[in-house]
Amino acid sequence: MIAELICVGTELLMGQIVNTDAQYIARSLAPSGIDMYHQVVVGDNPGRLTEAVQTALSRADVVLFSGGLGPTDDDLTKETVSAALGKELILFEDEWEKIQSYFRSRNRAIAPNNKKQAMFPKDAIILPNPNGTAPGCILEKDGKAAILMPGPPRELFPMFHDYVMPYLLKKSGHKLYSREVRIFGVGESDVAYRLDDLFKNQTNPTIAPYCKTGEVTLRVTARCQTDEEGKSIVSPVLDQIKKRLGDVVYDTDGHELAEVCHRALIASGKTLAVAESCTGGRLADAFICYPGSSAYFIEGDVTYSNDAKMRRLGVKAETLDTVGAVSEECAREMAEGARAAAHADYALSTTGYAGPDGGEPDKPVGTVFVALASADGTVVKRLTLFGDRDRIRHTATLHALDLLRRKLCTNEA
Amino acid sequence: MIAELICVGTELLMGQIVNTDAQYIARSLAPSGIDMYHQVVVGDNPGRLTEAVQTALSRADVVLFSGGLGPTDDDLTKETVSAALGKELILFEDEWEKIQSYFRSRNRAIAPNNKKQAMFPKDAIILPNPNGTAPGCILEKDGKAAILMPGPPRELFPMFHDYVMPYLLKKSGHKLYSREVRIFGVGESDVAYRLDDLFKNQTNPTIAPYCKTGEVTLRVTARCQTDEEGKSIVSPVLDQIKKRLGDVVYDTDGHELAEVCHRALIASGKTLAVAESCTGGRLADAFICYPGSSAYFIEGDVTYSNDAKMRRLGVKAETLDTVGAVSEECAREMAEGARAAAHADYALSTTGYAGPDGGEPDKPVGTVFVALASADGTVVKRLTLFGDRDRIRHTATLHALDLLRRKLCTNEA
Repeated sequence: MIAELICVGTELLMGQIVNTDAQYIARSLAPSGIDMYHQVVVGDNPGRLTEAVQTALSRADVVLFSGGLGPTDDDLTKETVSAALGKELILFEDEWEKIQSYFRSRNRAIAPNNKKQAMFPKDAIILPNPNGTAPGCILEKDGKAAILMPGPPRELFPMFHDYVMPYLLKKSGHKLYSREVRIFGVGESDVAYRLDDLFKNQTNPTIAPYCKTGEVTLRVTARCQTDEEGKSIVSPVLDQIKKRLGDVVYDTDGHELAEVCHRALIASGKTLAVAESCTGGRLADAFICYPGSSAYFIEGDVTYSNDAKMRRLGVKAETLDTVGAVSEECAREMAEGARAAAHADYALSTTGYAGPDGGEPDKPVGTVFVALASADGTVVKRLTLFGDRDRIRHTATLHALDLLRRKLCTNEA
Repeated sequence: MIAELICVGTELLMGQIVNTDAQYIARSLAPSGIDMYHQVVVGDNPGRLTEAVQTALSRADVVLFSGGLGPTDDDLTKETVSAALGKELILFEDEWEKIQSYFRSRNRAIAPNNKKQAMFPKDAIILPNPNGTAPGCILEKDGKAAILMPGPPRELFPMFHDYVMPYLLKKSGHKLYSREVRIFGVGESDVAYRLDDLFKNQTNPTIAPYCKTGEVTLRVTARCQTDEEGKSIVSPVLDQIKKRLGDVVYDTDGHELAEVCHRALIASGKTLAVAESCTGGRLADAFICYPGSSAYFIEGDVTYSNDAKMRRLGVKAETLDTVGAVSEECAREMAEGARAAAHADYALSTTGYAGPDGGEPDKPVGTVFVALASADGTVVKRLTLFGDRDRIRHTATLHALDLLRRKLCTNEA
């Protein structure tokens, strides 16, 4: 089955927004066996849109549309596509009632042109939109389908996930079952090297890599008839990946590195303090972004100056004078000082040269020390990181988190 | 002049990456008077690419390409476009030498297929690529132009900015002069309302709004022959905008809100401490992300627990017992406590309910207090913020920054 995507919107042609709809839809379709060969962006222009619709219908089984379902005269996707399919629009009373009550519940006035959002061809399959006023719809003709969705991602993503993907899978005779493998501590090329044969031989399940700064995620997806079958196709591949990559795999259930620590801390009932120099607030933020972090997070000390390192954490003046703030000793004293001050079970620390200026001959920019203090003692790790200031601070944060993750989940650190 | 964009890459069709190239190019072209009516994404398939090239050449004056210039057999944009234009590829010795030295300087082996990146039609205009191995090129024929660029944004963005945009402007007979107006404290609809006539009547300069969470940016761009002329077209509009919006305009020189504070602190020689509860590290991060922040940033105290608020900042137990941690009094004591402990000139604090759970009947989730302590006393602002946890924490950070910005730049707080 071949799908084509047509995104309608002058905002895209003007570059006011980035086309996240296209990525979301493409990523959702990729493992399904439904091929997408073309994505097209056109403006709110009936002539050019009609041409795009006709071209797409000539080469695809399903044409997906995002955008142009709003109430204004500029919004003409539904009118144009219906006309191209030779279908007339009529008022759907139910949908008109829903739109009116959406406005009433928000104490907003309804403009007369909102009525146009309740007009559809009479054989349209309506796609509910709980996050906005414009319902989507599926228009079928001669075994082909045009699927119209609103443009805003917070409306399109759930509509695509809840209604369109199930429709497409039913049409193509498949279900999908997906798991993510999250990896920290090795690069993408290293992962690709160690899993080369798995990548090359993939048909079902498929293995797709996604990279974020400093991390690699693999999505393993099976085409199947039932979840049970999906699980049985994916599980042996997950096991292979974990076996080959070892403990750089930190999660297979969709959690971020910080979230793995967050959940393990809550489960263990232990408490945490963090002491940061170069990461300057990011490590604290990595925990506090999760609701419920108050259960374990006692304090963070962003001791960016030497004065603060001594006053807040008890780092020794002698340490700063002899080996300096970017040193194994300082990282150790920061972590131990934060742990003692907060009476916490664990304390993490970071200190390093994030650049672009600074550094020493034997400790160039990118040299970072991270430490973890616990009842079992203190471990310090020296890192040599690459990239700009932002990347170095981000990667240093991940390394500190990984130190704690290994302690909490494998008791290794 | 009409331009069309063809992005070549299976990664886009698979949703592995989001198409930031398209946004960057579209946003750059928008104010230039060069129209873009179509953006197309196709995979690395010679048949479909040839078809897309022919369609684009039939309806546009300039066809821009991103992607498919790599060394592998899959990379065939240059081969396909050259064939469609009836041009043969020959080896450019100079370019081959540059590619070899790029590899030598990084101690990497050169694969034989890298030679293909130095092959171009003999009348090609080469576009240098200091950030990668694949040079771009411009191929001209019958008054039309095909412009080929590498796909990775860190290679394409500078190439487009440095070489392609000047070529297009020369071809269209224009220069561009642009300024950004950064706004915090009013919403997009409010900005649109107050500038309605300016938006409606815009021809030259154009005014384009870009929204980031909690902020609005307007880009004012003139088509002109010289920078002087551009300045004279843009300046009166900038003045109008500033006059109508007042001091919610915090910058017109391309700086973020935190950067405005960062620069003002450095210029003033004053020092800063921050005490955070709900923003949990983000406020510290907003400063420390800029190189040179060590000149003024003494410390950040992420006092997420009541214990830490009392111990680190001297917040009174009585305050926490009576009005609680989310209160004007607590915000005040946090800022004053941080300022005293760090001997800083200024101290900012934040405390609030970021949700999703928590809150009190008269202080629901989204209630945040931000405070600024200085030699002139302490100001506290109560905020009612909307959105999810991330948005509330982000917007609270911006409000704290704005308090400091107003103090430093207008001496208002």
